[in-house]
This record gives sequence, C-alpha cells and structure tokens, in this order.
Amino acid sequence: MSILIKNVILENQKKDILIEENKIKKIDDQINDSADEVIDVKREKAILPGFVNAHTHVAMTLLRGYADDLPLNEWLFDKIFPAEAKINNEDVYWGTKLALIEMIKSGTTFINEMYLFRGLEGSARAIEEMGIRAILGICVDDFNFDQVKKFELPLNTDLIDYCIAPHAIYTASEETLRWAKDFSDKNNLLIHMHLSETQKEVSDSIEKYGKRPVNYLADMGFLNDKCVFAHSVWLNNEELEILKENGCSLIYNPCSNMKLASGVFRFDDIRKKGINICLGTDGAASNNNLDMFDEMKIGSLLQKVNNIDPESAKAEDILKVATENGGKALGKKTGKIEEGYLADLILIDLKQTYFNPCYNFISSIVYASKGDCVSDVICNGKIIMRDRKIKGEEEVYEKVKEISKKFN
Amino acid sequence: MSILIKNVILENQKKDILIEENKIKKIDDQINDSADEVIDVKREKAILPGFVNAHTHVAMTLLRGYADDLPLNEWLFDKIFPAEAKINNEDVYWGTKLALIEMIKSGTTFINEMYLFRGLEGSARAIEEMGIRAILGICVDDFNFDQVKKFELPLNTDLIDYCIAPHAIYTASEETLRWAKDFSDKNNLLIHMHLSETQKEVSDSIEKYGKRPVNYLADMGFLNDKCVFAHSVWLNNEELEILKENGCSLIYNPCSNMKLASGVFRFDDIRKKGINICLGTDGAASNNNLDMFDEMKIGSLLQKVNNIDPESAKAEDILKVATENGGKALGKKTGKIEEGYLADLILIDLKQTYFNPCYNFISSIVYASKGDCVSDVICNGKIIMRDRKIKGEEEVYEKVKEISKKFN
Repeated sequence: MSILIKNVILENQKKDILIEENKIKKIDDQINDSADEVIDVKREKAILPGFVNAHTHVAMTLLRGYADDLPLNEWLFDKIFPAEAKINNEDVYWGTKLALIEMIKSGTTFINEMYLFRGLEGSARAIEEMGIRAILGICVDDFNFDQVKKFELPLNTDLIDYCIAPHAIYTASEETLRWAKDFSDKNNLLIHMHLSETQKEVSDSIEKYGKRPVNYLADMGFLNDKCVFAHSVWLNNEELEILKENGCSLIYNPCSNMKLASGVFRFDDIRKKGINICLGTDGAASNNNLDMFDEMKIGSLLQKVNNIDPESAKAEDILKVATENGGKALGKKTGKIEEGYLADLILIDLKQTYFNPCYNFISSIVYASKGDCVSDVICNGKIIMRDRKIKGEEEVYEKVKEISKKFN
Repeated sequence: MSILIKNVILENQKKDILIEENKIKKIDDQINDSADEVIDVKREKAILPGFVNAHTHVAMTLLRGYADDLPLNEWLFDKIFPAEAKINNEDVYWGTKLALIEMIKSGTTFINEMYLFRGLEGSARAIEEMGIRAILGICVDDFNFDQVKKFELPLNTDLIDYCIAPHAIYTASEETLRWAKDFSDKNNLLIHMHLSETQKEVSDSIEKYGKRPVNYLADMGFLNDKCVFAHSVWLNNEELEILKENGCSLIYNPCSNMKLASGVFRFDDIRKKGINICLGTDGAASNNNLDMFDEMKIGSLLQKVNNIDPESAKAEDILKVATENGGKALGKKTGKIEEGYLADLILIDLKQTYFNPCYNFISSIVYASKGDCVSDVICNGKIIMRDRKIKGEEEVYEKVKEISKKFN
C-alpha cells in the first residue's frame, strides 16, 4: 500500500510526500512516483506529525463529566472508584472506541495508555479496530498483583506494544514495584507510572518511607530510561537531577493538574535540566476532553502565568513536546516528518477562520486552533480518518449511552 | 419577524421557544402559534444564551500570531504599536468582520469593544453588517484627546450602544479621565477601561500618584456602576471593597493574562465580595483566538490550580460569568433565556463526540466542548449563522490576507 500526498504545506513550503507501507518513503518538491492512492490537497492543507498523547486512561470517557469541581479524595474515592467498579471488559472496549474517535478527530495517532487490567483485552481490540498506535500498559497494583503475576504477556502487534504500568507508589507496595521492574527488565518493557501528582503523595511517602518518591524509587534501583512518569508535579531539584541521570521521561498533564488542583509542572526547570518532556491529556474524567490542541495551548499559557514569564513554554517547544518527545520517550520513530519515520501524519485544513491571517503557522496551531482543523489522519501508513469521517461513530455513541445508564 | 424553535433542549428539558421581533416571547412545553420561520431541531440540539464577550479589541485579529512569546513591553512597544500605526479605518472594518465571523462561529452574540478611535466607523459598519450586538467604545487617551473632544457622539442603533473607553491610567492623564467621566455622566454612557493589568501599572501608579490605581480613581470621583474594568488582576482587598461599594463590574481575561504573563485574577475573592464578574477574550494578538469556550475552560482551570482548590470557578459559575453577568454589566437584557429577554441565542449540536456521554450538560459545555458545537446563532431576533455558514466568509479571508502583507 502506498499513498502520495501532493501539494501539501510542510514547514511553510509546498511539498509532495510519498508513504510506502507504514513509513515515510520520500519528501520532495515534486514526486511523480505512482502510488495506490494520490491525495492532492492543492496547498489548502498543511501536514503535521500526529500527536503523541503520552498519558491516557482512554475508557474514562465513560465517566466524562460524571464528577466535577470536587476535592481530589471525594472525586476519586466517592465517585470515580465506585463507578469504575461497575466497568467490565466490554465497557472498556466501547469507552476506548469513543475516546479514540475523539482523539483521531483532534489529531492524535499514538497513545501511552493505562487502564483497568480486567479491560486489557477490550482496550487492545478497540485500538486495533480504530487503527491508532499505542503503548498499552498492563496495570498492576497491590489489589490485582496476584492476577497480574500469573498473566501471560500478549505479543506485540503492528500497532500495539505492551508495557508494565504500576499505578503509583501509594497503590503498589515495594514488592509489587520490584516485581514490575523485574518484569520490565526481563521483557524489555517500558514502565508507565503516576509519580508525585499531589503534595499529599510526597508527604505520605516521607511519612511512610522516610524519603521523597524519587529517592524511594532510586534507592530501590527502579529508575532507568524505560521509565515514563505521568504528572511529576511535586519534584525538588535533587529529584530532577536523579531523574535526569537515569534518563527518565516526564509527562506534563496540564488540564488534569489544573482541574484536580494538583499543582504546576516545573516545565522550564525540567526542560533546562535536559529531561525529556512529553504531553498527555490524562483521562476524560479529569480534563474533560482528549484534545491535544487544548493541552498545548493550556500547557503553554499555564507556564507563562505561573512563571510570570511570557517566554516560558514557547509555541515551538510545546509542539515538540506534543509530538517528537513523545515518540522518543515511547521508543518509536514517530512525531517527526522525515524520511524513514513512521507514517503517522495529520492534515490540517487551512480554511478555518482562526488560521486568518497566518504569520506563523506553529503559533496558529498552538494558540489559535482547535482539533476541528484536523481533516484527515494517517496512522501506520493507513488513512484512519478522511474528511473528518470515521466509520461506525453513531454505533459507538449509542452503545456508550446505554453503558452510561449504569452509573446514574 | 417571528421564529419558532421546536423540540430544543433547554436546561435538560424539551421546550418550544417563540421569538417575536427581537425578544423571547414565549417558552413552553409545546407552542402551536404560527411563525414566519419554524425550526424543528428534534431534540438533537440544546439552546444556550449567546455569550457576552466583555472585553475585546476585535480588529486585532489582523495581528493574530504576529508577535508571541515575548515580554509585554517588547510585544507592545516593538511589535504591536508599530504594526497598529499602519492600520486604517478600512483595515479595522475587515479585521472586525474577520473577528465577528470567528466569534459568531463560537457562539458570541454581544461584545464590549474598544479599538482604534480612527477605526470607529469601520468597527460600527462591520458590526451592523454581521448583525452582532455591541457596546462600542470611543477610545480616548492623551494622544487622541483633542480629536475625541471635538467628536460628535453617534446615535445608538438597534445593535450598537456607544460608550466612552479611556485606555488606562498610564495612557490617559487625570484631565483626560475627568473629561471621560464627565462625558459619561452627561450622555449616560458606560465607561470601559483597562485597570491594574500588570504589577508595573500598580507600582507606576504608586510612584506617580502616591496611591494604587483604584484609590487614584476613587479619589478623583471616577467610580460608579457605569464602570466596567478589564483585567483587574492586581487589586488588594481595600481596592476590592471600593469597587464593590461603587458597583463597578470587573472583566476576567484568563487567556490574555496568562499569555502575557500578567498574573491571576482573584476570581474567588471578587465573587465572594459580591462584585459582578464578566468574561472576555481580549484581542487575538494576546490569546490568540476569540472563542469563549476556551475562555471558560481555561478561566475555570486556572482558578482551581492557582487556589489549589478544585471547587474554585465551578462550571455553572463560569457559564454565568460568560453570559448573564455580561448582560448585567453592559445594561442589556441578554445572557439569559427567559420570556422578555432579548433573542440572543445559540443552538448547540449535541452530536459532537465530546458530548458523549453527557451526565451534566453544563460541565460538558465548560470542560469538554469547543466553539465548533455551535450550529446556529440568533442575535436580536435574526438568524446570523445557520448550520455554521455565514455569508461572505471567503471574501473576508481574502481581504485580510491582503491587509496582512503590510505588517510583514
């Protein structure tokens, strides 16, 4: 299968791009090779790498807007956990499909996903059907540890790589964490985990272990360049140094951190330290959408006001965080438009009102535009959205409406 | 002219709404009156009051993305002011049309506008042609004071009321401000002004006048319930008390305050004090769009994280700030859907992915949705957008493209 995209705007220049199988084969001013499909966008569309949403619990779309404006403990323990107890594997399948429709429509082609262990099959099936790329986390905590230990690691597919996802240091004991690290080492898997999301997590760690979360993990020998940590809000300079030395990646989740009032990610300090920063939406119950355009704009603006520095988190930096850096953390050649990279690409409809005028395309993408400018999405060399249409949308909405009744 | 909207979702209930001339005439479970136009939305759309964007410089769309990620002084004095020096009345006309297309498409029906005095006619013409409601500020500062003094106040129209808009205490001297206050008193006009946007504005005021901005204005006898102040970031408790006593309204501009790194509006304190809070986008050069959905979400999230309190700026409060409170500040019966109120209304397409599922419609509007859910817009009893189509869009984009060349 090959696709030739003609007359598309790439970094302010008109280019042709040839995709063969699942890779970008050639980029040039003009390409005349034959292809199974030719898409001539007549300079009316720009092209960007698909976004890498580096921290998601996608089936939480089932609980979008179910509980808002509440203190974290009440939100989690009185609302989210009791509702999630009712979610089965089939629900996860439909909730994941719903989320992926929303994500594809806003230009995401790669997710770093962790959700209920009992819904792992449902997640995987939905991801394969929707055609998006994923690192799918096998979630482990003290409650499901015995089950997970007995579980046989599924084989990776073209779209899905599995990873191990211990929930957090406050839900996974040292024994569970050591097992997860060992499992990662043996199977060469990424580790995806929540880290230092709230002040309480840090103070509890100090009380329980006599040290801060990163020191606790470092002393356990847990840290290496396979580690990708979500939230990472409450880190001190010593912890940043340790994370840097160990080659860990950190995931900025601005909307979730703001909505749950967790705190502000130290973007500038972390960036200056040379730590790889990715961007993620978290779940729809704490955001409440999955649009990486929102995440980029809000993520940038929050840094500027928090640091009282308009030069914080510049447009080009935040776009890199939302694309290239995610690919780097997750070990895939995606998030960049270069020959040899995976063909995970999105087309941008330049006719949207907010692209007028356009002095600086990256500024327009980060500060002015929204997910509705994404017209077509290609993932792993296949067109998964064409003119904003995705197959089977209506059925997904109907099924989710049915499922949602059980939470009322 | 009458419009009957049938089977629309109003506050979670199916209703019929009859519009006669420019007002909401009747709301009931079923209305069988005849009407010039009947729109049956078959429960597939909800209805909301149109948004009141309470602080705008709409023709600054011409400079959208022209200068980003810069310190305020460099942004304003090296980039924005020199570019604005090239903007004439006709440019303002086209820039305003561009802005109004974007605003209508994201559900705004009423703006509180101030921009270049030399573009006042262009602003007014564009507003009348696009059919949106406006308070149009006659901008005055020390540079144009002599001109403005000689200017004859235009007559109000169905859509436009004029107000006086002294720019700020650092660009308008005491003489200019006293004249503006007098002009407001004589003509019964609102006063729209920037106030305490930055720390520098406050420290300069203390240095120059020996007092903080609000004390300076209070001592001048400037304050009353005609005053609507934008930004209002750096206010202390005494200033809040003075503003409350005088019945002033304050406008929260979250995106602009964040992007320019000005600071954080004291939303909770101001609300608890009983001061009327409105919401505004500011100009597109410091935002960089004019979408009140962005403003609501970001405005709410910023308060939560800044106060480390997830109960700050709840969804229902921020929606009120974006609608009803704006109408109140600007002295128009708009921003609410009640019999006798102005027919400034927007229809919301419930088929958007992010409305699935929907446990709480207001939460979905504030936290999950975007301007692209607005399908139809009625302002002053007339349909100004139908199925997301607005007349003459393409011509506006072409004209703006031409105009934008002079800034490069």
